[in-house]
Amino acid sequence: MPNTPKGTRDFLPDVVRKRNYIFGTIRAVFEKYGYQPIETPAMENLETLTGKYGDEGDRLIFKILQRDQKLQSALSANAETAIGDSGKRPEKGLADMALRYDLTVPFARFVVQHQNELTFPFRRYQIQPVWRADRPQKGRYREFFQCDADVVGTDSLRCEVEYCQIFDEVFAKLGLPVEIRLNNRKLLAALAEYIGEKDRLVPMTIAIDKLDKMPMDAVLEDLRKQEFPEASIEKLKGFLEIAAEKLPNAEMLDRVATLLGESQEGQKGIEELRFILEKIGDLGMESAKVVLDLSLARGLNYYTGAIFEVRPLTESQVGSICGGGRYDDLTGIFGMKGMSGVGISFGADRIYDLLEAENGFPDKETEGTKLLFVNFGESEADYCHNALVKIRKAGIRAELYPDGAKMKKQMKYANDKQIPFVALVGENEMQSGHLTLKDMESGEQFALDIDELIQKLT
Amino acid sequence: MPNTPKGTRDFLPDVVRKRNYIFGTIRAVFEKYGYQPIETPAMENLETLTGKYGDEGDRLIFKILQRDQKLQSALSANAETAIGDSGKRPEKGLADMALRYDLTVPFARFVVQHQNELTFPFRRYQIQPVWRADRPQKGRYREFFQCDADVVGTDSLRCEVEYCQIFDEVFAKLGLPVEIRLNNRKLLAALAEYIGEKDRLVPMTIAIDKLDKMPMDAVLEDLRKQEFPEASIEKLKGFLEIAAEKLPNAEMLDRVATLLGESQEGQKGIEELRFILEKIGDLGMESAKVVLDLSLARGLNYYTGAIFEVRPLTESQVGSICGGGRYDDLTGIFGMKGMSGVGISFGADRIYDLLEAENGFPDKETEGTKLLFVNFGESEADYCHNALVKIRKAGIRAELYPDGAKMKKQMKYANDKQIPFVALVGENEMQSGHLTLKDMESGEQFALDIDELIQKLT
Repeated sequence: MPNTPKGTRDFLPDVVRKRNYIFGTIRAVFEKYGYQPIETPAMENLETLTGKYGDEGDRLIFKILQRDQKLQSALSANAETAIGDSGKRPEKGLADMALRYDLTVPFARFVVQHQNELTFPFRRYQIQPVWRADRPQKGRYREFFQCDADVVGTDSLRCEVEYCQIFDEVFAKLGLPVEIRLNNRKLLAALAEYIGEKDRLVPMTIAIDKLDKMPMDAVLEDLRKQEFPEASIEKLKGFLEIAAEKLPNAEMLDRVATLLGESQEGQKGIEELRFILEKIGDLGMESAKVVLDLSLARGLNYYTGAIFEVRPLTESQVGSICGGGRYDDLTGIFGMKGMSGVGISFGADRIYDLLEAENGFPDKETEGTKLLFVNFGESEADYCHNALVKIRKAGIRAELYPDGAKMKKQMKYANDKQIPFVALVGENEMQSGHLTLKDMESGEQFALDIDELIQKLT
Repeated sequence: MPNTPKGTRDFLPDVVRKRNYIFGTIRAVFEKYGYQPIETPAMENLETLTGKYGDEGDRLIFKILQRDQKLQSALSANAETAIGDSGKRPEKGLADMALRYDLTVPFARFVVQHQNELTFPFRRYQIQPVWRADRPQKGRYREFFQCDADVVGTDSLRCEVEYCQIFDEVFAKLGLPVEIRLNNRKLLAALAEYIGEKDRLVPMTIAIDKLDKMPMDAVLEDLRKQEFPEASIEKLKGFLEIAAEKLPNAEMLDRVATLLGESQEGQKGIEELRFILEKIGDLGMESAKVVLDLSLARGLNYYTGAIFEVRPLTESQVGSICGGGRYDDLTGIFGMKGMSGVGISFGADRIYDLLEAENGFPDKETEGTKLLFVNFGESEADYCHNALVKIRKAGIRAELYPDGAKMKKQMKYANDKQIPFVALVGENEMQSGHLTLKDMESGEQFALDIDELIQKLT
């Protein structure tokens, strides 16, 4: 039996429809806020991707094997090269392209490459698959879709405000109650300063980022092992305890201002958060709760300002379903400096699982064929086929069972395909011009002419 | 300057919108005829693809380089293996996955893998990219989208009839006049018999397939070089001359019946074509012309019945824009026998070029942001941001320029992004509650309150 490669999936019709419902909802909201679609190729030049995701990321990039003469040359050269100190055979020249690993680096490449064709501030969204050679496990795939929006070329905090509105609107539409968590990387920098570990911002951030999955003591123990001094750990602990209190946003900001306000960066971070929270308060959210989470860190190192995370307030525990943040220098890696931006990403697979668990997919948006004509034989089929022209013209999704198969088989087909209505046309119906329409759920039957049938189904 | 790999493309917003208009139109028609969406992974196991596209095809498949230990083992094994007679280093074990080369083989794999989850006849459509290591040239890319519909598990000719309806409806919606050309592989088999070359059906078909691009004499000369006897070539020539006459479909069928009617396969082919043409006559086409083209061959060898091709009747000469046909045994390659099916494919890139040349993209379906609020400063921006909540709630795509930049820069932004309306809100407007709305095309200005503005833009 042939199958899909490890860690990849086929999507059957029902699943594609549900996924498209999610993507369509997000896309419509992005568009309402002025974001425009772009698409980039699945393959990038290897040098575009290498070195952008850390050593571990580099290892997980799928590379495209060279072909023909280039492959032969690489194999010959590598066979003649001595095996290195690592005991490994050289891999040089075997690939010069790779599959994209995320949408952020290709977007940075896109902005730099097309800078003269774009108008800044440039708002784009992008919904495409990415590939990672992670070890497949439950809920983690080697091919999955990312669903990103970014704006580059502005440092206006109104962008951050609008991302909160976008999160709110998307999840209100999807019917999922959520909490938007906010923090600012500048506060983390100020925190590192406050605990006297300014130079160890990154390991501190990585440790704090684990607070989700580990108790605080374990996180602190982790830092102890990295030889953070006891005094720093105590100060950090005090801070994290405040962060863990359930205080109103404004009060929390005041508390943190007294702790970190001496640092210039801390002041700036507090000011930015105040602005964002104040505007959100003015504009109002439809249903999302916005909370300050001073222990929110987000793993990615390119963030420099506000950071976001969205968590569902449902029973299902799935962790974060969206993330994002501001970065000062995304395109710097490709030599284009000073391009500040901010972006967010929706985790489509997790949102899918949540909606599935909450029974949240609306039938209407995910249904396929609405009406099946049973096929009783050639002359009946001719009649039905003619009726279908009119019915389809009215925009109704309808089909004729292609063969004169047994009734039972045809009804099973309608059931399996979850077609809600079946039309039966035999001798009598052809003579009277009234078709028999059966509602597959209720079992009710109606005798209707074609116009009445169209009306009933629209 | 970083760029995309050779033969691949970035799509900018305007292009994505136009492409989505094409895909959306095709998708909506597929759905109306009961076709359901599926998606398969970009990567397939190498063995799924190898040997399915001929030697040349195999060479053009992009393979994914193995990683880590598996790659090291392959490199070591290959380095120790003697270079073969071809003078080439062995490539064994360097890859066990590859990028899909078309949607047909992955679909066959899908049907076999999921046979117990599907209800037959199974109608699916699939719109996804494929990758081929062809030498890039004008209009030929290494990554391009295919747009396929297939039904498997039925040999009903009504499926062929519906494909003609689908072609007709799609191109009527796109506003492109087209001609649907029909033939039947069984007639080609009968023709091979008729010219006394039953065993050389494939080279004969390949030669006939070139009639598009070469004059008839060159095609016949080609067969002469392959040592087809003169008598066969004469007979073939007579047949092709009839095929080239502009006869009505029914008359053409009669003519060919007298030539090929002695062969059982020929009779069957004629009968199938008669059925299809008769039903199409009964149902009527919206605008497409359906013509019998007895010299239509379609390159692919798995076709066994009806074959289709669609050509535009526009000034732009782009050749075939759709193809398709019936196959008796698509899933046989994966061990599942007796699964007859028929499918079609739309050439999205060519349709795009045609619509571009014919100025055929409707503005309304491809527009982005409808309204830009100019940003005059923080308090004005606050006012606008509040107005935006209401405007977006009404479904209007609208944005606020994020910074208080110079007016000229903001107007340029609106122009570049082709935003049709701009709202100006200064002191006066904030006091009166009447915003100034500017129509960017006509230059007209209106003073409207928010409700009036919403009404004007919807």
